[in-house]
Amino acid sequence: MSYSQLVDRFTQLHHFAHLGAICGWDRATMMPDGGNEARAAALAELSRLLHERLTAAEMSEWLAAAEQQELDAQARQSLVEMRRQWQQASVLPADLVQAKSLAGSRCEHAWREQRRNNDWQGFLGNFREVVALSREEARIRGAATGLRPYDSLLDLYEPGMRCQQLDQVFGDLQGWLPALIQAVCERQRDQHIQMPVGPFSIERQAELGRDVMAMLQFDFQRGRQDVSVHPFCGGVPSDVRITTRYDEADFTQSLMGIIHETGHARYEQGLPPSTLALPVGQARSMGIHESQSLFFEMQLARHPAFMQRLLPLIQRAFGAQPAFEAANLARLYTRVEPGFIRVDADEVTYPTHIMLRYEVEQKLIEGSIEAEDIPDLWAERMQQYLGLDTRGNYRDGCLQDIHWTDGSFGYFPSYTLGAMYAAQFAAALQRELGDFNQLLARSDGLEAVFGWLQRNIWQQASRFDTDTLVRQATGEVLNPAHFRAHLTQRYLD
Amino acid sequence: MSYSQLVDRFTQLHHFAHLGAICGWDRATMMPDGGNEARAAALAELSRLLHERLTAAEMSEWLAAAEQQELDAQARQSLVEMRRQWQQASVLPADLVQAKSLAGSRCEHAWREQRRNNDWQGFLGNFREVVALSREEARIRGAATGLRPYDSLLDLYEPGMRCQQLDQVFGDLQGWLPALIQAVCERQRDQHIQMPVGPFSIERQAELGRDVMAMLQFDFQRGRQDVSVHPFCGGVPSDVRITTRYDEADFTQSLMGIIHETGHARYEQGLPPSTLALPVGQARSMGIHESQSLFFEMQLARHPAFMQRLLPLIQRAFGAQPAFEAANLARLYTRVEPGFIRVDADEVTYPTHIMLRYEVEQKLIEGSIEAEDIPDLWAERMQQYLGLDTRGNYRDGCLQDIHWTDGSFGYFPSYTLGAMYAAQFAAALQRELGDFNQLLARSDGLEAVFGWLQRNIWQQASRFDTDTLVRQATGEVLNPAHFRAHLTQRYLD
Ligand SMILES: [Zn+2]
Ligand SMILES: [Zn+2]
Repeated sequence: MSYSQLVDRFTQLHHFAHLGAICGWDRATMMPDGGNEARAAALAELSRLLHERLTAAEMSEWLAAAEQQELDAQARQSLVEMRRQWQQASVLPADLVQAKSLAGSRCEHAWREQRRNNDWQGFLGNFREVVALSREEARIRGAATGLRPYDSLLDLYEPGMRCQQLDQVFGDLQGWLPALIQAVCERQRDQHIQMPVGPFSIERQAELGRDVMAMLQFDFQRGRQDVSVHPFCGGVPSDVRITTRYDEADFTQSLMGIIHETGHARYEQGLPPSTLALPVGQARSMGIHESQSLFFEMQLARHPAFMQRLLPLIQRAFGAQPAFEAANLARLYTRVEPGFIRVDADEVTYPTHIMLRYEVEQKLIEGSIEAEDIPDLWAERMQQYLGLDTRGNYRDGCLQDIHWTDGSFGYFPSYTLGAMYAAQFAAALQRELGDFNQLLARSDGLEAVFGWLQRNIWQQASRFDTDTLVRQATGEVLNPAHFRAHLTQRYLD
Repeated sequence: MSYSQLVDRFTQLHHFAHLGAICGWDRATMMPDGGNEARAAALAELSRLLHERLTAAEMSEWLAAAEQQELDAQARQSLVEMRRQWQQASVLPADLVQAKSLAGSRCEHAWREQRRNNDWQGFLGNFREVVALSREEARIRGAATGLRPYDSLLDLYEPGMRCQQLDQVFGDLQGWLPALIQAVCERQRDQHIQMPVGPFSIERQAELGRDVMAMLQFDFQRGRQDVSVHPFCGGVPSDVRITTRYDEADFTQSLMGIIHETGHARYEQGLPPSTLALPVGQARSMGIHESQSLFFEMQLARHPAFMQRLLPLIQRAFGAQPAFEAANLARLYTRVEPGFIRVDADEVTYPTHIMLRYEVEQKLIEGSIEAEDIPDLWAERMQQYLGLDTRGNYRDGCLQDIHWTDGSFGYFPSYTLGAMYAAQFAAALQRELGDFNQLLARSDGLEAVFGWLQRNIWQQASRFDTDTLVRQATGEVLNPAHFRAHLTQRYLD
């Protein structure tokens, strides 16, 4: 009885969230500038409604009563996920939520200009308030859950993940990754890569994108692809909206971007239809979500054997070029180069960007550093990990990301957890089905790959906690050794 | 105090309606088929929310209390419009609303196939239920307002309009329009029109559309134009979304369609910014809305003097053609031809399609005919008005429109009221500013025209009832003589 009331309420919330997802997508892809103010007000009203309905007085009663009901295993797990969402929403006082939202909007808005102007001091003025409110949030969440403050933020994005485990993971990475980067760079130093010669018309890039999405079995009956400044995967599972951006000088960015977002999209499109409205039917975590996009982009699409699949599509779009030769393309798509910017990083140097941010945000939330200490720590680690001097260059340093501007502390680790899960899934899949060289030589090889992901990840949604999901899929919980083995094999063997 | 509570509530409703408007637009323009079920559920949930909040218990208290408050004239009119919306929503029992919505959806859905198959008997099966529920609706609305049943439906679309007045208007039309149609057809019989030679690429038609919208001062910062099967004007005033459809064989359809929808759009974009969230700040009625689109399309764009403005844009899009000569284009755009299909009709024969529908739906709601009597009455009137035999051709006869399938009885008269108001506005404007021949020869002529509409219609929103609005703009209430004079002058002089 109470459980079915909860199902009704979450179904209602799901319908309202649908409207927000589509209008959010529209804002990024379709909306003219003049529509922004009214849209922001409409979406804010929706957020208030969702929060009200999720945290209404009857909800805690229904949850408590349902937990006393006789329920099957699936309903019990569903209830666990309902309580999680309820707890996360109801634990914060409304004043704090509003204050953080306001401070975050102000800081993010000013940051767009401040980043361009390399204006760290200006940024600090707003950012201190965001940090103070995020610390308060972490303290309250921690007190309610018994977690350490930073853990309580981490848990929002990666349920069950704790600093203790992350410290080990990143500590281990710190031990071998800098040396591996150096070795790869030395090895690639004299490598010759023939660069594709542009320009590549946006129309042809869009065609190539659609061809690749079709090959990757994106369901165009339940989704579409458009253009936005910052690529993302949005919409709803029955209608997934992915975006990309085009650069006429370089088609690789949009090509790999589309493959990445298609990974996110297939996870959403592959969720079980019967529970889409419930927390238990949604994607497991940000890290698992990123594992699917990175499986598509890094494990699959940058694999040398995948070039045989990509080549005909690239040639159909742009004609023949000497650069369009499988071995050359494979070299191009596995080029490693330390750089300042996280979003432009290759898969080998990418984790160093995350390690650095993890250390900074953890210390910031726990109070062992202050906002003004960030640039020095940043410069020190960039030197240590990548041999780059970032002193004074805030724009391409600690001002480069949007995440901290609105207080989304705890999000960054998901990227590297995603890369590690992707490597672990790829290893398990290849043990079961044969390695990618064999698989991709088979005409039904991609079907086999997607079938494995569908069975092991997509259709599981949030029916199990992350450790259980990963153990059922791969025989063990998170094991970063697979990521190390993947990098070593692809870049040093 | 109560009035400001009402303002807050209507502002909230406006924000929620914004989400529905954008998601509704998305459904018609962007959404893939597979997204339909979830979208329908989300929009239905939103309708329920809007209805709940609009008819909540406190609303009738607030309305009653506000009506005792000391308010200025503007707030008093605002309150009148608030009560109208509240009354229309709250008078129907929820069961009836739901039953009508279900019967309407079922009838409309089946109609799409039945129309193709000319299946009147199949349609009747569902349609009888829609008629029964609409009669019940009209009876309840009528009892609550003291209006005759059909008047109470008419009042939903055209506040203040009554059958008594419409009977006069259409009775008058019936007296002179058939003879005028005949005279025009005779006069045009030997007229030579050079037809533009296609195909006209969709890309070039889209460019032409954008050029025309820019000339008509559509604000692209607060709106956009896209493609849909059935053209419409949607979105929200700060972000108006108009659509068109393209036919490669004929660019006139999309060109005139875009001009028509731009008229609707400029009304929305011209509403006063400070009251967009309130009923008093919204468009006055469906008839006044249609008067703006028909002013743009019929009064302005099909005026011979407007060809000088259109020609350079048409030539830029499609190059030079013998058919692109001002006098020839003017003949093409004022060609009169009796036909079966309302939406394809010219401005001279269009009102006969409406007179016929008005007679049918009025009799149907008042109970003097039954659903099965429609085809005979239809055939009789089509013969009488346009000399066309429609017997047995339901597809192009009484099955052609969507309006009745979901029980939107009372809507059709708005089209012809719009045409009449448009003619009356054009006459008043030309008396004040000079006739279109003079005006369109001036480089600032269009600014003058739009300025008149802005002052007299757009910025008035619903601050006055329709009669007052029209009297202030033109010196008299609705006077169909202007429409007759317009047709006579354009087609017979
Ligand atoms: Zn991603
Ligand atoms: Zn219209």
